[in-house]
Amino acid sequence: MSRFWKKNVSLPKKEMMTDMKVNEKLTLLRSVMLEKHLDAFIFPSTDPHNGEYVPDHWKGREWVSGFDGSAGTAVVTLGQAALWTDSRYFIAAAQQLADTEYVLMRERIPGTPSVAEWLSACLGGEGRVGIDGMVNSEAAVEALQDELSANGHFSLVTDVDLLQTVWTDRPPLPGGRVEIHPLMYAGEPARDKILRIREALSAVHADSILVTALDDIAWTLNLRGSDVHCNPVFVAYLLISDEDAVLFIDNAKLSPEVMAYLHGEGVSTEKYSQVRECLSELRDGRIMLDPTAVNHTLFASVGCDVLPLPSPIPAMKAMKNSVEIDGFRKAMIKDGVAMVKFLHWLLPAVREGGQTELTIDRQLTRLRAEQPLFRGLSFDTIAAYGAHGAIVHYEATEESDVALLPEGLLLLDSGAQYLDGTTDITRTIALGPVTAQQRRVYTLVLKGHIRLQMLKFPDGACGSQLDAVARSPLWAEGLNFLHGTGHGVGSYLSVHEGPHQIRMEWKPTPLHAGMTVTDEPGIYVEGEFGVRIENTLLITPYQTTPFGQFLQFEPLTLCPIDLTPADLSLLDAEEKAWLNGYHQLVRERLSPYLSAEERQWLNDVTQSVN
Amino acid sequence: MSRFWKKNVSLPKKEMMTDMKVNEKLTLLRSVMLEKHLDAFIFPSTDPHNGEYVPDHWKGREWVSGFDGSAGTAVVTLGQAALWTDSRYFIAAAQQLADTEYVLMRERIPGTPSVAEWLSACLGGEGRVGIDGMVNSEAAVEALQDELSANGHFSLVTDVDLLQTVWTDRPPLPGGRVEIHPLMYAGEPARDKILRIREALSAVHADSILVTALDDIAWTLNLRGSDVHCNPVFVAYLLISDEDAVLFIDNAKLSPEVMAYLHGEGVSTEKYSQVRECLSELRDGRIMLDPTAVNHTLFASVGCDVLPLPSPIPAMKAMKNSVEIDGFRKAMIKDGVAMVKFLHWLLPAVREGGQTELTIDRQLTRLRAEQPLFRGLSFDTIAAYGAHGAIVHYEATEESDVALLPEGLLLLDSGAQYLDGTTDITRTIALGPVTAQQRRVYTLVLKGHIRLQMLKFPDGACGSQLDAVARSPLWAEGLNFLHGTGHGVGSYLSVHEGPHQIRMEWKPTPLHAGMTVTDEPGIYVEGEFGVRIENTLLITPYQTTPFGQFLQFEPLTLCPIDLTPADLSLLDAEEKAWLNGYHQLVRERLSPYLSAEERQWLNDVTQSVN
Repeated sequence: MSRFWKKNVSLPKKEMMTDMKVNEKLTLLRSVMLEKHLDAFIFPSTDPHNGEYVPDHWKGREWVSGFDGSAGTAVVTLGQAALWTDSRYFIAAAQQLADTEYVLMRERIPGTPSVAEWLSACLGGEGRVGIDGMVNSEAAVEALQDELSANGHFSLVTDVDLLQTVWTDRPPLPGGRVEIHPLMYAGEPARDKILRIREALSAVHADSILVTALDDIAWTLNLRGSDVHCNPVFVAYLLISDEDAVLFIDNAKLSPEVMAYLHGEGVSTEKYSQVRECLSELRDGRIMLDPTAVNHTLFASVGCDVLPLPSPIPAMKAMKNSVEIDGFRKAMIKDGVAMVKFLHWLLPAVREGGQTELTIDRQLTRLRAEQPLFRGLSFDTIAAYGAHGAIVHYEATEESDVALLPEGLLLLDSGAQYLDGTTDITRTIALGPVTAQQRRVYTLVLKGHIRLQMLKFPDGACGSQLDAVARSPLWAEGLNFLHGTGHGVGSYLSVHEGPHQIRMEWKPTPLHAGMTVTDEPGIYVEGEFGVRIENTLLITPYQTTPFGQFLQFEPLTLCPIDLTPADLSLLDAEEKAWLNGYHQLVRERLSPYLSAEERQWLNDVTQSVN
Repeated sequence: MSRFWKKNVSLPKKEMMTDMKVNEKLTLLRSVMLEKHLDAFIFPSTDPHNGEYVPDHWKGREWVSGFDGSAGTAVVTLGQAALWTDSRYFIAAAQQLADTEYVLMRERIPGTPSVAEWLSACLGGEGRVGIDGMVNSEAAVEALQDELSANGHFSLVTDVDLLQTVWTDRPPLPGGRVEIHPLMYAGEPARDKILRIREALSAVHADSILVTALDDIAWTLNLRGSDVHCNPVFVAYLLISDEDAVLFIDNAKLSPEVMAYLHGEGVSTEKYSQVRECLSELRDGRIMLDPTAVNHTLFASVGCDVLPLPSPIPAMKAMKNSVEIDGFRKAMIKDGVAMVKFLHWLLPAVREGGQTELTIDRQLTRLRAEQPLFRGLSFDTIAAYGAHGAIVHYEATEESDVALLPEGLLLLDSGAQYLDGTTDITRTIALGPVTAQQRRVYTLVLKGHIRLQMLKFPDGACGSQLDAVARSPLWAEGLNFLHGTGHGVGSYLSVHEGPHQIRMEWKPTPLHAGMTVTDEPGIYVEGEFGVRIENTLLITPYQTTPFGQFLQFEPLTLCPIDLTPADLSLLDAEEKAWLNGYHQLVRERLSPYLSAEERQWLNDVTQSVN
């Protein structure tokens, strides 16, 4: 699943929204703005933990605008309202904003003003602009402040949560229970992780750190939760200092067993709502806060010196230990078995008729759910048939769902959460005859996918350096894709995990042995079809020479790659050898868990090519 | 020639240095430091124009330390002296500093203090530190200021040129004459370039710009000079505003003809020494100054508002016009003819005996000098035989020179200045039998060289994205090189021209059709041999598709690639096809200018391979 597109995950409209119309909400909002002497208010799509998926409690931009895309900024003045979003959502946003006051601002289209430019025009270059500092990172608020300063004389008010007053049926904070993630899956006790974090703090002369990213907290404490869609995390803050580790969390989430466990690991608890006050009471030492992660309100609350540095935890979390790696391998077998059972079932079912994007999504989920330690999906399945495959962030709905015919390409990007690992795999499958263009594009994407997996590279190279290796076979034919080529994958955690990525833009995080990363080039021909092929890989040592340590990729994902839509004459001998080796590995690892019929099918589709 | 290593170009010691010993100079220096209440003084290896090659007048660090490497920083306190340099110069610097007070500080070696850390230790964390603001960029002074602040309570004094007082036999400012670079080579009148620069200023609301980079001035005005080794530039500043263009230059450099030409292009002149005063008299508008290029003293002298932005000129200069491209093609034919005559001569001469690195360097220069429009070398030839080939910045001297034997590899990196273009080519030549390791390494470097030239890529990609394509065949065998893969080449200007580069480090400058860039992977096996293969390329349009504009490389360099040390079985069909196509191009373009014997030789060495 490409990190490029964030999924829009929300409850059905009727449960989220009241009967109040958007324009009525604006009227109510403006009355409170007047009370508070605010000329404008900005609603972003972020939350206090700066996560990829926002719990309903913080979907204020959606409530106030009616636009439910994952990315967007609503801005309301006393007389006007506008919503900024990117090209993925131009059509949906235009529809959803149709009966409202909101003007749609198409980001990155020439002539579209920035928020600050628009405010300057609306307010005559001055005024009081409000924003909830809790749902904006310190860096975002600083950037906004700079932009406003460059466009007029504005004062930015950050300590107002207007919604608390007007959003009367606001969903509560997520209340999921927390569970212990056993050492047999985590591989390192929480107390040891905390020790390592303390060492990292000490190395930069920091005395404490506030951890706000939910997956970082879950990883550090070997706890998991269910507060965020597809992500086994829980809402909390974690303050680690030389002596203490304090988890700020709603007590109702914690069973006596978890309480005892935390105590044993040297972690005490405080109320979730106490974090701000607690930070303000810090007087001595220096606290490390990542300005791009920690929200502005908490950042500004701190009573002691602040060391504005990236947290060391994402880099620690990215380096999987041997238990986690072993878990990944086991989870990948289960996921591969489910995928093979699904693929074995698919073509006959399509030929029989009655299958749609949604029915096969349910079938695949069912097969995964049969696997041991299954805990849910790691993201909503993208089952995109035909022209839908070209919509990069496609998610089938009852309205968009189409019947699958025995022809053309099906793009299937899916993954699951198992207690022992998280999976993320994309296969593009020929449901029947494909066109010459589809065959050529499919093969070039496959070539890029293979080339990246075959690459050896120096330890410490970053993903931006490697990215072109997956793209060059596509570039050679005037093709390209605009999303990233790869992202880290968590260990029963977020399917999109940093800090490393493989992409065209500069991401300087060095790659090291022990990291997971996806390999997912694609091509999207608008209105026609899409192709993406994705394996999750593990970075392992290759060789050490006088020129340094070199690394390689090992495929973790175990699932055949459909060769029926491929033009094998476009693959060279090395690429074919890789393909044969990979398919042999898939056969060997998965066959013991398959029925005789499935095994025969797997043997057939993984025949050596030459 | 790789941009990674800056060449050390200096007159022989006896002409540069007085009889005064380094320690005597330090005594003199310290007496002046005492007078001026300075506790320390820092001598960098840069000049007021921040150029790659420093004219003797500004080689103050060399004068004060005796160390003549191209990169180094001397720091003198009242009681101590130290010199920082990088690993290329550890051995040379240790020798040259042996009989002096200077302690050698080996950069990037664990335990080596930074200048500020060392000063803090020597001076007890406080004091007045001097530096000549004229020979340090604004960005460098700001970085030094930050570093000093982080290490104690220092005040930085930047308006002192101590050397002016103590360096009594300081070489004068370079006094070369300026000549007009005719439109038949430049392709665009100076007045049109100035108009384009004014448009670029206007686009960012700047009213003027001070141009301090000598090649930018030469390019803008279509003038050339002879003030800097191997670079046809002249010492001057250029101030361009909405209404005026003022060239600050020593009048003795200008003939009446050049004066009249400048007048005709709308450019007036002022004394070189007047630039600071003139800047201080600016009162209105905003002047664009590049903090990484403009020296601190001039930066600080400006009387009006400063817009600290990169100059638009390097990007304009990098995009060659059709006349310049035509000139490049012509210059490359001449350079290729000289190279073919040289290569045809080389092996028999080596077998006959008596040839050394220096004799063949002279022979090659002689052959180039016979070509029309030859104006000199574009850098000092690197003729490195055997183990010398592994010394990346090798330059043969009378002391290091070795006899060439009919065996092993000769690395030959050379180039020339012609009125119609600048050349830069590296060939590694088997003088006789080579070892299996040499053959393998040579072939892998060739593979990397070919792969990069074959690459197609999207318009606007940057060199850092493409770099791995040249390296991946080397990485696959645990090999790597630490210099850049490519740099721009000027049009009868600097052989190292920015702003784009192809390298591992992030250089975000986008690549476009019309840019020149070298392709020069290499491998260096210490104490044994080195291989580098370099062509200068032109970026040209490839195709436009619904996925955008794609680009390709066209080789400008015309010279056979030695296949005798190659293992052709390691090249794939596409690579061989590229090689055959390139060799056919070389034959077709050069044959008309060769004798029958040379033509026969060229035919032989460019035979198709399969």
